[in-house]
Amino acid sequence: MNRAILLLSCPDRRGLVAGLSRFIDEHGGNILHADHHIDTSSGLFLTRLEWDLADFDLPRPLIGPAFSPLAGSFEAEWELSFSNELPKVAIWVTKQDHCLVDLLLRHRAGELPAEIAVVISNHPDLEPMAARFGAEYHCFPISRENKKDQERSQVELMRDRGIDVIVLAKYMQILSPDVIDQYPHQIINIHHSFLPAFPGARPYHRAYDRGVKIIGATAHYVTMDLDEGPIIEQDIVRVSHRDSVEDLVRKGKDLERLVLARAVRDHLEHRVLVFGNKTVVFG
Amino acid sequence: MNRAILLLSCPDRRGLVAGLSRFIDEHGGNILHADHHIDTSSGLFLTRLEWDLADFDLPRPLIGPAFSPLAGSFEAEWELSFSNELPKVAIWVTKQDHCLVDLLLRHRAGELPAEIAVVISNHPDLEPMAARFGAEYHCFPISRENKKDQERSQVELMRDRGIDVIVLAKYMQILSPDVIDQYPHQIINIHHSFLPAFPGARPYHRAYDRGVKIIGATAHYVTMDLDEGPIIEQDIVRVSHRDSVEDLVRKGKDLERLVLARAVRDHLEHRVLVFGNKTVVFG
Amino acid sequence: MNRAILLLSCPDRRGLVAGLSRFIDEHGGNILHADHHIDTSSGLFLTRLEWDLADFDLPRPLIGPAFSPLAGSFEAEWELSFSNELPKVAIWVTKQDHCLVDLLLRHRAGELPAEIAVVISNHPDLEPMAARFGAEYHCFPISRENKKDQERSQVELMRDRGIDVIVLAKYMQILSPDVIDQYPHQIINIHHSFLPAFPGARPYHRAYDRGVKIIGATAHYVTMDLDEGPIIEQDIVRVSHRDSVEDLVRKGKDLERLVLARAVRDHLEHRVLVFGNKTVVFG
Amino acid sequence: MNRAILLLSCPDRRGLVAGLSRFIDEHGGNILHADHHIDTSSGLFLTRLEWDLADFDLPRPLIGPAFSPLAGSFEAEWELSFSNELPKVAIWVTKQDHCLVDLLLRHRAGELPAEIAVVISNHPDLEPMAARFGAEYHCFPISRENKKDQERSQVELMRDRGIDVIVLAKYMQILSPDVIDQYPHQIINIHHSFLPAFPGARPYHRAYDRGVKIIGATAHYVTMDLDEGPIIEQDIVRVSHRDSVEDLVRKGKDLERLVLARAVRDHLEHRVLVFGNKTVVFG
Repeated sequence: MNRAILLLSCPDRRGLVAGLSRFIDEHGGNILHADHHIDTSSGLFLTRLEWDLADFDLPRPLIGPAFSPLAGSFEAEWELSFSNELPKVAIWVTKQDHCLVDLLLRHRAGELPAEIAVVISNHPDLEPMAARFGAEYHCFPISRENKKDQERSQVELMRDRGIDVIVLAKYMQILSPDVIDQYPHQIINIHHSFLPAFPGARPYHRAYDRGVKIIGATAHYVTMDLDEGPIIEQDIVRVSHRDSVEDLVRKGKDLERLVLARAVRDHLEHRVLVFGNKTVVFG
Repeated sequence: MNRAILLLSCPDRRGLVAGLSRFIDEHGGNILHADHHIDTSSGLFLTRLEWDLADFDLPRPLIGPAFSPLAGSFEAEWELSFSNELPKVAIWVTKQDHCLVDLLLRHRAGELPAEIAVVISNHPDLEPMAARFGAEYHCFPISRENKKDQERSQVELMRDRGIDVIVLAKYMQILSPDVIDQYPHQIINIHHSFLPAFPGARPYHRAYDRGVKIIGATAHYVTMDLDEGPIIEQDIVRVSHRDSVEDLVRKGKDLERLVLARAVRDHLEHRVLVFGNKTVVFG
Repeated sequence: MNRAILLLSCPDRRGLVAGLSRFIDEHGGNILHADHHIDTSSGLFLTRLEWDLADFDLPRPLIGPAFSPLAGSFEAEWELSFSNELPKVAIWVTKQDHCLVDLLLRHRAGELPAEIAVVISNHPDLEPMAARFGAEYHCFPISRENKKDQERSQVELMRDRGIDVIVLAKYMQILSPDVIDQYPHQIINIHHSFLPAFPGARPYHRAYDRGVKIIGATAHYVTMDLDEGPIIEQDIVRVSHRDSVEDLVRKGKDLERLVLARAVRDHLEHRVLVFGNKTVVFG
Repeated sequence: MNRAILLLSCPDRRGLVAGLSRFIDEHGGNILHADHHIDTSSGLFLTRLEWDLADFDLPRPLIGPAFSPLAGSFEAEWELSFSNELPKVAIWVTKQDHCLVDLLLRHRAGELPAEIAVVISNHPDLEPMAARFGAEYHCFPISRENKKDQERSQVELMRDRGIDVIVLAKYMQILSPDVIDQYPHQIINIHHSFLPAFPGARPYHRAYDRGVKIIGATAHYVTMDLDEGPIIEQDIVRVSHRDSVEDLVRKGKDLERLVLARAVRDHLEHRVLVFGNKTVVFG
């Protein structure tokens, strides 16, 4: 079934749901999912609408233009997607393979509506693993001296492949603003702590030293502020005095891949709407 | 703010969201929450709509009649409620006080939009606790011989007080069909297991004997089939070999009151829609 | 059954378990629980031993002195308790009643092996609630000017009543070092965040602003460093964009009382051993 | 570090901890972990002791014989293992790969102290995936007619390879008693429900039909009674009316691999002691 998905936010006012659903209805669309949220602190109306295109009387290229005047009258920001146009994804890794393999396996299992176009890394270590799953692999070794140049090459490769979404699947380099700027709210990172606890380096070691009874992982969009971007998903696992740092790392790896996979899936299904520094994740 | 809440289910077809939201919009209502669900296995469209009545151009008694033709054209079952009309609740207990006290405290804290009209029990034990919180208490001792008569008196009291919702907060008697019939999907029970595991008597003992690593609690509507009614909410807690039956009971009590309180709150906020033997709980 | 409970920590070395269990065995004690932990980073051996005193050949007052030489040879810190000597507890509150009532109810239900000797507050609001459960209540209004004096009176009352353990059950004042000094690792606080995230004031508001998907609560011992003391217990609950700050507060209250109750119970059962700024909580 | 691990159960009586630790101490062993449990309903003492063999004065083959008289005097059942003797594991699968790949990846990551000797299946489908990770694969197609013969061949292969532990990682055949008999408490199965709810076939479909709000997975030892063996580990995940059967299957797959991996790891680390139809899993 071919479906259209609309993510939209605008100042709240009367008649928004009626206006949006009338537009879909009048063109012959059957609404499959509709979820609305009003954020009272910002006064924003945020919505996700998904409808069947089978009897829709507009061809896909004309839907956006036809919708634009209505959206304009609402002063809305919006994004229209189609279920059969798969986003192109690049996975960035360093040396740890658990998130990479997890994403590749889920992709194989049909859980991620995307095309995984390329895997890139600053190290060669994971090339054999990528090869196991038939994924193209590019290595961009990064040093202090070459970082700017390598990032330029990385972005060039992204553009060349038409990448829509970048997944930092344990990529242990901090991205420069030049990269982040190109992909606003399209770069997803997994941080191995329950943010805002333990941002930055070595969160498991710091969690161990602090003696916490629970550890976590956080998937978020990358912004200029390290580990401060809008949170998409978080989860936790209990630990105890019996757990060494190595145990935290091991338990954390399971969390990391689950939390990252859920966030990536939500993003690829166009369920995540960013407003301010927060997200609505439509269920 | 005075709000109207519509719970509706009908066969799915095109134009439902548009039709419903147009009705609200045309009468000047501002939609605050709207949540739709299509159950593909039954082909049902299920929705909850909540709107501000401030500028609504129909007085409350006329909203239902005005909506009725549209609902009829959808072949819909529906229920209209108003946020400032508090449902009347009766809490039924036996000897355990943890759920009763929890509900009374939440009610005091403003968490339950209801009037708690009366507490009834088959034992006198909890009268002092009810008195602590100023709740009226009636005791209906039940024996094999008098059960039918006592149930008739119980139902009479319910009617007399205009009770809308019955909460079985550890009421350890099985209700007769005569009682259940009077309150379809308006009697909420808490069962101290993760249904469908361990229905019936002594679930903690049976969980202990089976050696499970997790125990649960389930809040559900009471139907003719014991512990088989539509599930509203469930939750669990981990246990281990270190836990005795007494520990399971103690841990379970915390679960029971949390799960029951969530289900009761969802019900009182008109978030629960029953279809078949299942529920949609709108978030 | 009358039981002795030993909490002990000492530098790890060979023969500790054998030495300790031989002492108990030779005096006729039957070990009911024994849990040992070696913290490799500090090189410490930490243990909790619980044994039946039925056939123990030493009267209680002589057990400590008899054990002392062995403990000395291990360079151990240790604490010996008896199951039938109930610790005396003071509960400190401000205006919120959920943790207070929860502790009083659990105490009534036999879940807390302690004597709840007194409730004190800096406000009079909760006196009626304490009275409902027959708990003695003292009010010490605190201003900037009188804080030192009032704390002196509070400590005096604690001493007068022979208080062993202070539970800060939503006491919204920061204790002075003079108070903390008197009760090392005997003052338990509940903080309404997942520490080390959101220490200090208004954690729910900050969690809301940060857009986290999970909130938490932390029970910890009070030390000189605000919200930095050894963590005893933590737990979390999921939240979403649908939750307002008020919803976080409401959901958080359930967490706070559960987490605080677990920590208090663990402490009262002599299951918590502090080492450095961390705890072992024996299961 | 080379370590010995003793799992032992016997009727409870005075002096057991002292006797066991003295044996280890007198031979120069340093106890690294010691965990004891008394099951009051059966009157059993159950323990796991782990000690460093560095200064132990008995060579490995003599430890068992030296310990035997003491164990005999306790009427104990016991099992002695050594950390550097890796158990040999066979993984049995059908067509689903998620548990298989998960175990192979964890093994590569050093999380499973075992030798994965062989993968067998009743279908050829997963041979390429096994090959990706260099695992030997044997296919035993099973029909009603050849089942007995094929099982005989399977057991022969197990014996030939010296298999200690069989992991049924989504092996969709019911084993005959002849197979189960050979590996008492050495065959671990993952069942895709929260047992005892939904034993047998199609648990996700039945969970969907029942309208549960939580689904689970259970790892247990295989016994003659289908899905009735001693439970090692369970976990759950929340679902809602939005989840289709396919969503339950997808969410369940994550549970299955986590729960199975934890159970297999616990078993391989000699942390699981079976008594009656229950387990102690030492932490």
